[in-house]
Amino acid sequence: MSPANTNFANEVRKSFARQSLMRLIGADLSLVEPGVVEIILRYRADLTQQNGYVHAGIVTAIADTACGYAAFTLMPAGSAVLSVEFKVNLLRPAAGETFLAHAEVIKPGKTLTVVRADVFALNGSKRTLVATMQGTMICLPTMPETRHEPSSSR
Amino acid sequence: MSPANTNFANEVRKSFARQSLMRLIGADLSLVEPGVVEIILRYRADLTQQNGYVHAGIVTAIADTACGYAAFTLMPAGSAVLSVEFKVNLLRPAAGETFLAHAEVIKPGKTLTVVRADVFALNGSKRTLVATMQGTMICLPTMPETRHEPSSSR
Amino acid sequence: MSPANTNFANEVRKSFARQSLMRLIGADLSLVEPGVVEIILRYRADLTQQNGYVHAGIVTAIADTACGYAAFTLMPAGSAVLSVEFKVNLLRPAAGETFLAHAEVIKPGKTLTVVRADVFALNGSKRTLVATMQGTMICLPTMPETRHEPSSSR
Amino acid sequence: MSPANTNFANEVRKSFARQSLMRLIGADLSLVEPGVVEIILRYRADLTQQNGYVHAGIVTAIADTACGYAAFTLMPAGSAVLSVEFKVNLLRPAAGETFLAHAEVIKPGKTLTVVRADVFALNGSKRTLVATMQGTMICLPTMPETRHEPSSSR
Repeated sequence: MSPANTNFANEVRKSFARQSLMRLIGADLSLVEPGVVEIILRYRADLTQQNGYVHAGIVTAIADTACGYAAFTLMPAGSAVLSVEFKVNLLRPAAGETFLAHAEVIKPGKTLTVVRADVFALNGSKRTLVATMQGTMICLPTMPETRHEPSSSR
Repeated sequence: MSPANTNFANEVRKSFARQSLMRLIGADLSLVEPGVVEIILRYRADLTQQNGYVHAGIVTAIADTACGYAAFTLMPAGSAVLSVEFKVNLLRPAAGETFLAHAEVIKPGKTLTVVRADVFALNGSKRTLVATMQGTMICLPTMPETRHEPSSSR
Repeated sequence: MSPANTNFANEVRKSFARQSLMRLIGADLSLVEPGVVEIILRYRADLTQQNGYVHAGIVTAIADTACGYAAFTLMPAGSAVLSVEFKVNLLRPAAGETFLAHAEVIKPGKTLTVVRADVFALNGSKRTLVATMQGTMICLPTMPETRHEPSSSR
Repeated sequence: MSPANTNFANEVRKSFARQSLMRLIGADLSLVEPGVVEIILRYRADLTQQNGYVHAGIVTAIADTACGYAAFTLMPAGSAVLSVEFKVNLLRPAAGETFLAHAEVIKPGKTLTVVRADVFALNGSKRTLVATMQGTMICLPTMPETRHEPSSSR
């Protein structure tokens, strides 16, 4: 898939840097290519549910962010991306040292882009699929000014 | 729906207290009844995505936790609950002072319980539906020992 | 919810009459109101899966059609509606004399409308929830000519 | 993935033959391998929605049946399979001469098996992805007697 915006990688990185949740949980972008984005997260005890596994909401957060930016890489310059919906199957407990969300565009579109993400637990050289997401992202031609300035909007 | 475990409210509260993610994001249980659980979250700038809205992963985290415990209220004593899958439609940007996830059991079952959660943004006296989840929870008769001791399992 | 198109009920009925699948399976529109549509289907042995229950694809067909038209009732005159995605939880075997799909708009929108449908099995005076759908419909300002003439497009 | 039941292909074919809906719509099994099942459907005007495309319910019917049997190939002899839930993204209008549903097991399990199906429209030598399903199937150790004899249960 060929990007409409040759500056897509920079725009993804700038937007990701504004996601304060990614900073809070310690997630990083590890790959940005046309239609494909990966995010890495290290296990932390404060990200877990009652059994000590990484919480499904955090697994979803990195999968959703990877999906949104995978879609965004193919959108025209000046666009904004929002999640419309996603479905997650939790395949195995999210136990591991590190987690990798790998997202790919299945079907790009002018308005709607359908994406998929797999989330793997990495333990040494072992890679285990722990969750898979299928979702829809929407391209907004431009975001209203106030949305870029959340402090003034509240 | 009548609970199989008369101590369900205590067990939900004890399990919720072990979810370190809920502590990290500042979420609290606000209602625990048979088949119904509510969770409250206050807006914080460090929980947001690139436009200053609360991140879909955090909206999902409170909806999923509410769904899991709504299912758990109807399970026999000694059970454990895990999320099998969920689907989330993000209806409006998650902008607000406070967020309420309200989860209800649609269909209880010995193994699988189907649940729904609505997430509302609360602004003063105004309540706006921002997301809705439909998901499946599984009842495990008992959790393996090591899962209750996450520190020893890593 | 107030319809943008005062002729919505006629347009739903005309469009439904063009759904040849509904004729094949014997489904009928039983309610058309702003944001709400119901479809009735009678049990037939040729609509079943391997255990004699109505096939999940048929349960989905009536739920999806009801969802699409529930969204369509709120769209401007001259619009077309297509399904973007849906998720179905199959709660109980679809066993019954008659099936009712009741769809409601959760969140109308200029482009995307989020809908929900419950499918009930009716046995005498007993009504059992057998499936629930959560989905997204898209409003297309006009359909390309050829789409209205399927025979010429193949 | 290695099948627990060496007779899996026969059992899939026997069960498929009992799905009277597949006969009604003219669908056929075209591939049965461990963890993978394909179903072929020819376009028929009586399977369409209002614009002449194959109805989403029919697309879902072949995807769901392929998913169920893909899961079933890996289940022990004597098991029964039922659909728990599925999510379908409709990527393009289902226009074509023939449709192929290709289902694969993502994660087999003793109770729950997670599956994915892609549905392609085939036009001459061109193959277009029109829908994708992500779902969950459940293995029932044995089905109650009456479920195998649908005529006696109604």
